[in-house]
Amino acid sequence: MSTIADVAARAGVSKATASRALSGRGYVSDDTRLRVTDAARDLSYVAHSSATSLATGRTQTVGVIMPPIGRWFFAELLAGIQESLFALDYELSLYGVPEDADTRERLFEHVLPRRRFDGIIAVGIQPSARELERLHLTGRPLVSFGPHSEESSAVSIDDAAAARIATEHLIELGHTAIAFVGGPADAAELSFGDARRLEGYHDALRAAGLSAHARVASAAPTMPGGYAAAAGLLGDRRNRPTAIFGVCDEVAIGAVIAARRLGIAVPTELSVVGIDDHEHAEMFALTTIGQFPREQGHEAVRLLTHRMSHPDAPLEQVAAASALVVRSSTAAPR
Amino acid sequence: MSTIADVAARAGVSKATASRALSGRGYVSDDTRLRVTDAARDLSYVAHSSATSLATGRTQTVGVIMPPIGRWFFAELLAGIQESLFALDYELSLYGVPEDADTRERLFEHVLPRRRFDGIIAVGIQPSARELERLHLTGRPLVSFGPHSEESSAVSIDDAAAARIATEHLIELGHTAIAFVGGPADAAELSFGDARRLEGYHDALRAAGLSAHARVASAAPTMPGGYAAAAGLLGDRRNRPTAIFGVCDEVAIGAVIAARRLGIAVPTELSVVGIDDHEHAEMFALTTIGQFPREQGHEAVRLLTHRMSHPDAPLEQVAAASALVVRSSTAAPR
Repeated sequence: MSTIADVAARAGVSKATASRALSGRGYVSDDTRLRVTDAARDLSYVAHSSATSLATGRTQTVGVIMPPIGRWFFAELLAGIQESLFALDYELSLYGVPEDADTRERLFEHVLPRRRFDGIIAVGIQPSARELERLHLTGRPLVSFGPHSEESSAVSIDDAAAARIATEHLIELGHTAIAFVGGPADAAELSFGDARRLEGYHDALRAAGLSAHARVASAAPTMPGGYAAAAGLLGDRRNRPTAIFGVCDEVAIGAVIAARRLGIAVPTELSVVGIDDHEHAEMFALTTIGQFPREQGHEAVRLLTHRMSHPDAPLEQVAAASALVVRSSTAAPR
Repeated sequence: MSTIADVAARAGVSKATASRALSGRGYVSDDTRLRVTDAARDLSYVAHSSATSLATGRTQTVGVIMPPIGRWFFAELLAGIQESLFALDYELSLYGVPEDADTRERLFEHVLPRRRFDGIIAVGIQPSARELERLHLTGRPLVSFGPHSEESSAVSIDDAAAARIATEHLIELGHTAIAFVGGPADAAELSFGDARRLEGYHDALRAAGLSAHARVASAAPTMPGGYAAAAGLLGDRRNRPTAIFGVCDEVAIGAVIAARRLGIAVPTELSVVGIDDHEHAEMFALTTIGQFPREQGHEAVRLLTHRMSHPDAPLEQVAAASALVVRSSTAAPR
């Protein structure tokens, strides 16, 4: 097996220069870089990261655990995590949370504890107490999204505040019949963040003396979920809300589409607001609470690498930025 | 550092049994498994995959390169790849293709050649000749999606045939004014698969003597892209197509939404067809050519692992399944 010394000798440069040229980090001239990469190719040289890892005890690898679903939020978050890890020269080992219980158990009981990471980022996985214990057993720093646990650092918008602001926006426009779309059929299934959003909705109604008007429709947190739930709410002409607050933009967009299908004009006959500022929000002129998952991904890597170098630092719960974006899906009721 | 022998001794079992219990592969009783995992925990034992890798030259890792975007197709494909790799006890090292050219160059020139994988799966990355050369330089099997290259195994539906079948469906219903939505402003930017779809559209028109009616509108391959392009086509009342074929379901769904906004009834005044059977296709009653990206992910892993154990096997171009799904977005023109 060729070594970096062989490559440096063949290219006629120092080992340090050869290393810089191959890593892409630090300055070398284009000419030198070409000589070194040609030499590396001629010698079939591959930097031996396993050997490095045995020597240092560091793997330069971060494990990322997330559900295998194509929602905009997760894709953006993953992109942010990738960008930051790549810039720091870390590998990203990806684990989709399996849908069936047996495979999920194998992941947490057998696979993750055997892997060597420098840290773990868990996204929206709602781990059980036992699963969380297995994650901590790896002895590596953990940063999570979604459930704010006392036992890991976490990044999240203030879900309750975001929902309160969205609901207050509708109340200030003069709405009183405001439905929350996105509660699950079974409250136990509500994700941590979504439960906080429901709380914020109730808080805002209570503060305005509108608690008696609270109305929660269950819906999967998807566009078809919001469509179906809104179609149900809007179909009853005598008991129709004048505003819908969707637990996320996918649900809110589903509600806008359902309203159009039923010939109900948005915003003159129905106001709709969501949370996310999803990539499709602008196309539907959706008023929403914007959040920035790519930035949250960067923040998670910052938190994680800080804990890698300071294992005894206190856990941090970082509140990510959010902001009301008013477009034309909301207006005063007629 | 504890070894598997230490764990076995503490648990009072053989090394082979301890190994089976920790890997989750092969039978051990629940009681034994518990004793072994407890012993491993007490000893802070972690299987040393780097050491294994130095001994065998295998890394049990597959590199997956794909753009960091949240499209349904990529998410499903990745889920399929994850499922199969996880079942085979392979690690998945994920690389998002960076959006800026310098970082992309760093990935192909410096990062990937230094990593040790047993194989690579490249998804929709449209590599340059130079990038492909760097991938092959790793000396590991490569399976790609998207551009069918002579130099790698690949999985794809027959894009030209799918587009021909979609277009023929519209022709058989009696349409002659059929617009293709999804051509790019610049033909050089058309992805390999999308170019083949455009070809299939032209083939079907030609076979029906309708070439003079061909009409191609450029659009980003997204829902907002399809919305904007369709709004443009449909806005001109005197020269309005009676049918739209979207290069993918996102584009077709954007066209359905644009038609509804303009008060044009689907399918009585406008037929719309797509390709994918996207998770939202049913909600829009979209007629489409269904494909099954999760299965394609499984197939890619099958191809890759076959090449790992048979390095001299011929390259394979696998045609994935697709099927016309007729819903109610298509009908005879008035």
